Amino acid sequence: MNKYLKLGDIQKAHQRILPYINRTPVLTCSSLDEIIGAKLFFKCENFQKVGAFKFRGAMNAIFSLSEEAASKGVVTHSSGNHAAALALAARNRGITARIVMPSNAPQVKIDAVKNYGGIITFCEPTLEARETTSAKIIEETGATMIHPFNDYRIISGAGTAALELMDEISDLDYILAPVGGGGLLSGTALATKHINPKIKVIAGEPKNADDAYRSVQAGYIIPPENPDTIADGLKTALGDKTFPIIQEFVDDIILVTEEEIVEAMRFIFERMKIIIEPSSAVPFAVLLFKKIKIKNKRVGIVLSGGNVDFGGFFDLMKGDMKNVHNTKKSYRK
Amino acid sequence: MNKYLKLGDIQKAHQRILPYINRTPVLTCSSLDEIIGAKLFFKCENFQKVGAFKFRGAMNAIFSLSEEAASKGVVTHSSGNHAAALALAARNRGITARIVMPSNAPQVKIDAVKNYGGIITFCEPTLEARETTSAKIIEETGATMIHPFNDYRIISGAGTAALELMDEISDLDYILAPVGGGGLLSGTALATKHINPKIKVIAGEPKNADDAYRSVQAGYIIPPENPDTIADGLKTALGDKTFPIIQEFVDDIILVTEEEIVEAMRFIFERMKIIIEPSSAVPFAVLLFKKIKIKNKRVGIVLSGGNVDFGGFFDLMKGDMKNVHNTKKSYRK
Repeated sequence: MNKYLKLGDIQKAHQRILPYINRTPVLTCSSLDEIIGAKLFFKCENFQKVGAFKFRGAMNAIFSLSEEAASKGVVTHSSGNHAAALALAARNRGITARIVMPSNAPQVKIDAVKNYGGIITFCEPTLEARETTSAKIIEETGATMIHPFNDYRIISGAGTAALELMDEISDLDYILAPVGGGGLLSGTALATKHINPKIKVIAGEPKNADDAYRSVQAGYIIPPENPDTIADGLKTALGDKTFPIIQEFVDDIILVTEEEIVEAMRFIFERMKIIIEPSSAVPFAVLLFKKIKIKNKRVGIVLSGGNVDFGGFFDLMKGDMKNVHNTKKSYRK
Repeated sequence: MNKYLKLGDIQKAHQRILPYINRTPVLTCSSLDEIIGAKLFFKCENFQKVGAFKFRGAMNAIFSLSEEAASKGVVTHSSGNHAAALALAARNRGITARIVMPSNAPQVKIDAVKNYGGIITFCEPTLEARETTSAKIIEETGATMIHPFNDYRIISGAGTAALELMDEISDLDYILAPVGGGGLLSGTALATKHINPKIKVIAGEPKNADDAYRSVQAGYIIPPENPDTIADGLKTALGDKTFPIIQEFVDDIILVTEEEIVEAMRFIFERMKIIIEPSSAVPFAVLLFKKIKIKNKRVGIVLSGGNVDFGGFFDLMKGDMKNVHNTKKSYRK
């Protein structure tokens, strides 16, 4: 059917990682169904280990390595969920993960990688510095580079979420996923079209980082230009492995504004009582703002992750607490 | 076994409400198990309709009414989850719910009740005004008063959450629930001790609203004195129906500070990626701050609700967006 990956590759990836991953639940929400006018099935990768689908691909990549390659460890450059996922996956196999991170990476991301036992090498926050630093580590250690998305092992690992979704929910008409570098989207599209080519695969993308949309229009990869979006997982350019799969198997890419993303996120928080990161709200924003016609359809949505920085929220709450204590004190005087 | 409610009453309540409620999932979280050193099972009533266990009791009360009583509607005074739960339960039976609310009730609570079709009567924010307003409505309409917790129909409805938890998870050593007016706690304790008296029932209560703790110590109901807690569902005094059940069947009431509640809430948000309200974090705070010895035990926790006001959080996020847009604008100049 295609020259990239067979259904068997994704199924093999699934067998390989199944003992280690969370088989995440598929949640439904009658009040959202009512609002959207369709039957929605949310595949909750926010409940995956490390809080994101990225753990699937990282596990598949690391557990695909030969003994010899594995013994030399793995390396990647990332400051996002892939870094934490690779660190935990490496720990699961008992090997070393070296993560190249920009010196200005947020502390929570640094802590997550350290927490899972990853070894961090900081570099200047430029693409060149990341690549020369990674190359140097590979030269010194013989570690295998595991790219965050432009890697068939990562793509087939990411595709296992859609595999589980279709295994659990029959007769889907649509499957939606967000698109950044395209690892989740290409894996989802391959798994879906292999199993049932009638299911339409739709990507959601921030208007402020619309490089995938423009790339498919143009027929070649256009890198994003100053992608200013709160969906920080979706700022990356497509890769030469993810792009052709997306060209061939994704039915449409739909753009949403920043306001629409925040509104969609708020609906998921308030109606479903689950936490998703802004990137994960992008496909639901497509539905909430009626950008495709799905009346009475059965729609699967891959919620890609749930890593949100609640620092400000809990600070506000602690502010409230301070007021509580102050009130109390003055009352008791 | 006891003079209050039989297991059969709670089972009958369960049969009655089962077609309408969400059979909420029991979630586990390996990273929290590791931190606590026990096996935890979270009964997710934050995923219940109206976002709280309150829907169970409200449904049981309303569907227990005779046709004649039902036709005259129901009334309650509440500005919390019970108000919304009663409104939706009444709508499910096609009858009228009249809710007496203080004139200073938060707009989100007012909207929730209106959204479910409840008819609101505002009154002065005093106990006396609430009671005279309710009495007047009952006189005029013949409506049945459904108290938020001091009512056996409410208590047995609330107990159905523990029933489902024990049905799904065997060999529990502990079940924890928060205590406010005691509806959830007394229902949980009755269901638990009827099914397996060896399971210890532990309540969590805010130190800043420790009236249940002090009432059990004293042997009579002591109303809370200026309860200043972010766990706003737990500020109420016990009732003459809930108190004796708690005295007889609850093994212990453990107090936690405001800081402990916020920290517990943050752990649930960040590790489990689910939204719980501060009241629901109280029992987990008991575990997180090692106030009882549960090493290697199997512990059920009823997460009572997930209605959190995220206004400030999304305002912060929109603030971020504004900065994004400003940057962009200036960049494009």
